[in-house]
Amino acid sequence: MTSFTSTVFTPESMSVPGGTETVLRGGRHLFPLLPQAFAGVRRIAVLGWGPQGRAQARNLRDSLAGTDITVAVGLRPGSASAADARAHGFTEADGTLGDWLEVASGADLVILLVADAALAAHHEEVFAALRPGATIGLSHGFLLGHLTAAGGDFPPGHGVIAVCPKGMGDSVRRLYEQGEQINGAGINASFAVHADPDGHAVDRALAWSVALGAPYTFRTTLRSEYLSDIVGERAVLLGAVHGLVECLYRHYLLSGDDAVTAYERSCENITGPVARTVSRDGLRAVRETLPAAGREVFDRAYAAAYRPARELVAEIYDEVADGTELRSVILAERRLADRPMSRIGGSPMWSAGPAARARRGERELPVEAFTAGMFVATMAAQIDEFADRGHPWSEIVNESVIEAVDSLLPYMHARDVAYMVDNCSRTARLGARRWGPRFQAAYEQLALPAAESGSTDPALLAAFTSHPVHEALASAAKLRPTVDISVA
Amino acid sequence: MTSFTSTVFTPESMSVPGGTETVLRGGRHLFPLLPQAFAGVRRIAVLGWGPQGRAQARNLRDSLAGTDITVAVGLRPGSASAADARAHGFTEADGTLGDWLEVASGADLVILLVADAALAAHHEEVFAALRPGATIGLSHGFLLGHLTAAGGDFPPGHGVIAVCPKGMGDSVRRLYEQGEQINGAGINASFAVHADPDGHAVDRALAWSVALGAPYTFRTTLRSEYLSDIVGERAVLLGAVHGLVECLYRHYLLSGDDAVTAYERSCENITGPVARTVSRDGLRAVRETLPAAGREVFDRAYAAAYRPARELVAEIYDEVADGTELRSVILAERRLADRPMSRIGGSPMWSAGPAARARRGERELPVEAFTAGMFVATMAAQIDEFADRGHPWSEIVNESVIEAVDSLLPYMHARDVAYMVDNCSRTARLGARRWGPRFQAAYEQLALPAAESGSTDPALLAAFTSHPVHEALASAAKLRPTVDISVA
Repeated sequence: MTSFTSTVFTPESMSVPGGTETVLRGGRHLFPLLPQAFAGVRRIAVLGWGPQGRAQARNLRDSLAGTDITVAVGLRPGSASAADARAHGFTEADGTLGDWLEVASGADLVILLVADAALAAHHEEVFAALRPGATIGLSHGFLLGHLTAAGGDFPPGHGVIAVCPKGMGDSVRRLYEQGEQINGAGINASFAVHADPDGHAVDRALAWSVALGAPYTFRTTLRSEYLSDIVGERAVLLGAVHGLVECLYRHYLLSGDDAVTAYERSCENITGPVARTVSRDGLRAVRETLPAAGREVFDRAYAAAYRPARELVAEIYDEVADGTELRSVILAERRLADRPMSRIGGSPMWSAGPAARARRGERELPVEAFTAGMFVATMAAQIDEFADRGHPWSEIVNESVIEAVDSLLPYMHARDVAYMVDNCSRTARLGARRWGPRFQAAYEQLALPAAESGSTDPALLAAFTSHPVHEALASAAKLRPTVDISVA
Repeated sequence: MTSFTSTVFTPESMSVPGGTETVLRGGRHLFPLLPQAFAGVRRIAVLGWGPQGRAQARNLRDSLAGTDITVAVGLRPGSASAADARAHGFTEADGTLGDWLEVASGADLVILLVADAALAAHHEEVFAALRPGATIGLSHGFLLGHLTAAGGDFPPGHGVIAVCPKGMGDSVRRLYEQGEQINGAGINASFAVHADPDGHAVDRALAWSVALGAPYTFRTTLRSEYLSDIVGERAVLLGAVHGLVECLYRHYLLSGDDAVTAYERSCENITGPVARTVSRDGLRAVRETLPAAGREVFDRAYAAAYRPARELVAEIYDEVADGTELRSVILAERRLADRPMSRIGGSPMWSAGPAARARRGERELPVEAFTAGMFVATMAAQIDEFADRGHPWSEIVNESVIEAVDSLLPYMHARDVAYMVDNCSRTARLGARRWGPRFQAAYEQLALPAAESGSTDPALLAAFTSHPVHEALASAAKLRPTVDISVA
């Protein structure tokens, strides 16, 4: 499932637990190969100007500058994004901005980056507008989930490929820009080939991924991508982080901390020192940087949080795989048709955020052992559940660790977690609202009392310290340059 | 939909907002009419010995003592309940205890009170065992929901009726026993006729309900019962109460209370003085018993909690009506096949319960205005959502108010809320786990900050004080004697 060959690029083998996976290392030195790899694609339509649309349209255009391949942006009638697209150089005047169906009808590769709900409602209009043989491009598996649930399918005769950056749109652009100085900086991506009528699907997908700036690209299926993506954002990427910091903030308040200290020991710690340590030195390093007493606290927190988190990840996985989660998103979209989604940023903990951020210059915040133990346990729970369900290791480490520490958490660190939950995709927002509170309750009602009891679980800890994920993470780390994302 | 006639009993008209509903008032003086009303039923099988099975089998047997109608209990092979059934006088020796399929095959009315999961897995075996023309009896709509989801149906040629006590099994028995002293004490019930091949379904259902001791019986449909029952237990009957007390306990701790005081102001207050006030004097009385300053606090809490609670009740309703909630229960049952459900009773707040209960003799605990405002707002939110979705008023007040204050909350007062959540039906336990944390988060992240802001909502308050539910509750109260349930 994970191996592939290319007539243009030179994939390599990455060592992972139990074997190898084929990957393509990226970089700007590969840009001259893009016209050949795009195999007959001379016009690319990017439909939608959300964070992914904006980042991908710009990266593709910049990477293809000087070639005869053009990139045009298609927007729905009356889209509020037209002005911003023009400000970034996509204009009606030069034919690189227009109505989404018209732009789609003129392109050889049509990348669907409109919001999930719009895609669910209007994909048939887009399909009908495609020119014969045009390739359909996706950046996550939502549409497959929707078509499966609704009994539909992709139109025959068209290639269907996905390139899925393992990070939010803003970071796909930001790291691409940093790639001018550090070749290969970027957001890793998976690709999938769902339909390949002319045999060029793999090369086109790889070209797209290289043009986005992916440090390395691995192969998955649309179904596997869909499952890991939707589950991951409900669990350790977003929902679980939100639930964990709400739980820990109150926990530290109740143990006597003032609001800013409680914020620092919970939210600030995860988005700052914990995320940085994992990003630079891997998961095991979080525990190893702690003094002996801190390690004991870490071990207690890890043992207490792992099983409640694992049960929830399994529950989320079952509901996503069954289609139940998607049905609930569709039901929510109907209820929300008349009124805005309530925001969660009013929760008292977020008012402590500015003061905590203002203190940042004063000193280096150390890793908080208890917070780190619960967070790393949640990450390990997701890793283990994904491994049990048969995901490729590249997908596991990217969707559970790398996307968190190199894309999402740095953004949460710059703003805060609530801002992130209130401003991500609607499918992710709804998912975080559904599952964040479940994680919070599981941590409060199961993990905290277990941690108070003081017992550890040597077998669980041994499984963590000797976990194959450390090897997979180390292999992935070798494939990309170390670069701290700069967040405005 | 709500009107009915009987050839045996004398229904009466109950005034409800916008019209009337037909109801049958119960009482022991009606027991002599039971053989006629049971119309050809000479043997009743009660399958299952959970709280409902145990209560219903005993009540039916006692009400039918001296008639030629016998009641037999059927248990699955190897059931751990056989000894308890024997201890209550159902024995193999006199033919009133046996294998569930054998007992079912010998009965004219077969009441299915086994656990939902067992019913989902084995209903076809029971259907196959029925004698021709036997009536199928249900006490909630779960099986209809399951059959709808699975594309199945009830077997043709059999009557299908439901009698659904609006209270837990223990209270169905306990109040029935108290009915020896106070005629008419009991748990109200709804009935539904889903299939009526011989025209006697209504009378049989009424006889069953009267024999259980229902103070009054109203009519609904199996679908309407299913929706209100499954939504109600996820919302104000169980899930929301759990979420609310978890939220309020921490809230009072953070405002400086010691653990026992925080427990008294949250959990103890709802299960004690608030529930008692609603039970005796109605919903509006909770606000009216407060001094002027307390009313202002109540109004603020009410205004802050109503909308978040209403949104969640609407979400639950959508998911139950869509079948999504039932799918998630089935997925959870599969995951739980190998391991027990984790318990929530370890949450720190419950350790304060015994000390709070020990203080009860010392003084009368007053209604806590803030707690009461949030709880009553949640009740009003469920009432309004049920009314918008077209439920009969008897169903609304029983499923949103009377079942809470006269059955469940008194039991939670005797034990605690966590005990209740950990010991109710699996469908309810799973539902409370799914939705309790959602309510907790909505109260914490939306309602508490709104209440802090100090604003009230005069229009929302006016809608509450002039709410038609007060008339419906008053009508319902006239139909039953005032009796405080005695909980061992």
